[in-house]
Amino acid sequence: MKLTCSKANLLKGVNIVSKAVPSKTTMSILECILIDASTNEIKFTANDMELGIETKVEGTIAEKGIVAIDAKVFSEIVRKLPDNDVTIESDKNFQISINCEKANFHISGKSGEDFSYLPYIEKTDYLTLSQFTLKELIRQTIFSIADNENNKLMTGELFEVHNNELKVVSLDGHRISIRNVQLKEDYPDHKVIVPGKSLQEISKILSGETEDEVRIFFTGNHIVFEFDATTVVSRLIEGEYFKINQMLSSDYETKFIINKKELLSCIDRATLLVKEGDKKPIILRISDDNMEINIQSQLGSMQEDIDIEKTGKDIMIGFNPKFLIDALRVIDDENVTIYMVNPKAPCYIKDDEQKYVYLILPVNFNTAVN
Amino acid sequence: MKLTCSKANLLKGVNIVSKAVPSKTTMSILECILIDASTNEIKFTANDMELGIETKVEGTIAEKGIVAIDAKVFSEIVRKLPDNDVTIESDKNFQISINCEKANFHISGKSGEDFSYLPYIEKTDYLTLSQFTLKELIRQTIFSIADNENNKLMTGELFEVHNNELKVVSLDGHRISIRNVQLKEDYPDHKVIVPGKSLQEISKILSGETEDEVRIFFTGNHIVFEFDATTVVSRLIEGEYFKINQMLSSDYETKFIINKKELLSCIDRATLLVKEGDKKPIILRISDDNMEINIQSQLGSMQEDIDIEKTGKDIMIGFNPKFLIDALRVIDDENVTIYMVNPKAPCYIKDDEQKYVYLILPVNFNTAVN
Repeated sequence: MKLTCSKANLLKGVNIVSKAVPSKTTMSILECILIDASTNEIKFTANDMELGIETKVEGTIAEKGIVAIDAKVFSEIVRKLPDNDVTIESDKNFQISINCEKANFHISGKSGEDFSYLPYIEKTDYLTLSQFTLKELIRQTIFSIADNENNKLMTGELFEVHNNELKVVSLDGHRISIRNVQLKEDYPDHKVIVPGKSLQEISKILSGETEDEVRIFFTGNHIVFEFDATTVVSRLIEGEYFKINQMLSSDYETKFIINKKELLSCIDRATLLVKEGDKKPIILRISDDNMEINIQSQLGSMQEDIDIEKTGKDIMIGFNPKFLIDALRVIDDENVTIYMVNPKAPCYIKDDEQKYVYLILPVNFNTAVN
Repeated sequence: MKLTCSKANLLKGVNIVSKAVPSKTTMSILECILIDASTNEIKFTANDMELGIETKVEGTIAEKGIVAIDAKVFSEIVRKLPDNDVTIESDKNFQISINCEKANFHISGKSGEDFSYLPYIEKTDYLTLSQFTLKELIRQTIFSIADNENNKLMTGELFEVHNNELKVVSLDGHRISIRNVQLKEDYPDHKVIVPGKSLQEISKILSGETEDEVRIFFTGNHIVFEFDATTVVSRLIEGEYFKINQMLSSDYETKFIINKKELLSCIDRATLLVKEGDKKPIILRISDDNMEINIQSQLGSMQEDIDIEKTGKDIMIGFNPKFLIDALRVIDDENVTIYMVNPKAPCYIKDDEQKYVYLILPVNFNTAVN
């Protein structure tokens, strides 16, 4: 095999597929990027068996062939090459030489035979979104997946298509994040659970531009994202997702509107008194036109007032401050509306059109605190 | 005590003195910043017994007093306060309240009694430098101090004043870094060893501006740096520094001029084949008009040519690439001149006026490599 690409194109390709290279694995072939120049295109592929990424790299092929190359070494070499054309050549023993200007690297590659290609997907059933929207959807929900594998379903996100609506849901037992977006047209119903890790990696490669599109394909076991010159295939998590609608309620006893930035800065300040691992709640005391925030820890105490517009009952309620911060950070509205029932029932941060719903469970607090 | 400062001034003061707060200590008073408003000035002090920093903070004093406050908590509170005036108040039990807009923090302080004030220094004997020059001097030499305490002298840097010259030297047994700067006037002779850690911290607070000055005072056991509203006092390392002049030689068999950036990028590329902890040398083969750089490791091999202007003998010599990189990074010249004697003798990177001299010991290499 012998091919020539610009350093910039190589680097782009390597950076994209590297997202599917596992950091730890016992199968050394998974640590490789497959360079496939067996046809008229140069394709890079990486595949950790759950997430697979393939991208086309612009360049010229002087001699067709395939070789697998250690992703980490290849990526570091490419990164440090001069900004010029790079020639990659491999012989029949998979010895690879990489040349750029006066620099010559020699490293051992592997046969592509053992490499797991991406599964073949029938590309019929798909929907279209902007890369911006998908990237935002992930950012606005990914923080509330569970990070341990005790409950596999919680490590993924629900992607549910119904008519012209896409609903994305994540939950970790303490909170639920829901985002709804309107699609340009009606699509057949779909309900799949996508691994959170896959979404995190995809999000890093998406351009985030509103004019760039991404096509999403659904199959029995996989979801496929196609955008630019890249195809991302992720296994789905098997099982029936939680019945979200049964967990949600629109009843409330207290409703108030508050400036989001003020609330976020205030909670952020309060949490500096909480050491990592220490589970101190912040206590909100909501009365007419005022919310008092209180926190007490071994380090000291903090108290602050914020103006609110309230309807309904006064309430005193405690929260894990991190959960409030996570939700508030991904809401772009200047003011948010918060709904509460009682100090033991979930609170909701949601907008009128329910483009977003963030449910957060309160925590018990010692009423002697104040 | 009761005083009011802008958040910006507080933050500046806290950031400066925090450099002298030890990250680990068994004496909890050392983890504090002393707020001294007992006179007409507000002064913050921190002191880890080796390095002490005092800085004046602009603000108004409503009630005189002194209190010590945990540096980490105080610094985080100040950092997260709104950008407005901050009032700090302490009562006779050293309970401190910090108020800014609607936010109120309460934390426990300590009496200033146990706090170690900076030693009193007779400020007669000093020299003046620009902050830029001092910051540069530290950056250009600090990398070759030894980082373990086996030989205490090697953890410091020699500051030697003779007439109108300041010489700064660091060495770690494998290399020596020397910088010479011309002072504006003649000063009395001084020869002190300043702890590397102190220099690193001072360097972080120096503005780096050529028009800002720093005054350096010498006493028997301390060196004092005075600049802006800040005084930094560092203990000196006791002992006689190494006799540098006996280690240097101006004889050479090979001398060549090389583009610094090209050499640096090339070595940088070569080292990506060397895993952390792996002591693979790079091998330089210097012949007429050409230097070939070679490296071989378990990951693969790399070879690259660079044009040079050589006088004297051909030579093949091996180096720890990190030592070359460290020295080349802090030289601002476009081209550097390198002097070599033989594959076992030190090599020198130096300019004609000897503003800088970097001595690096070569390493043995297996001649079978190439």
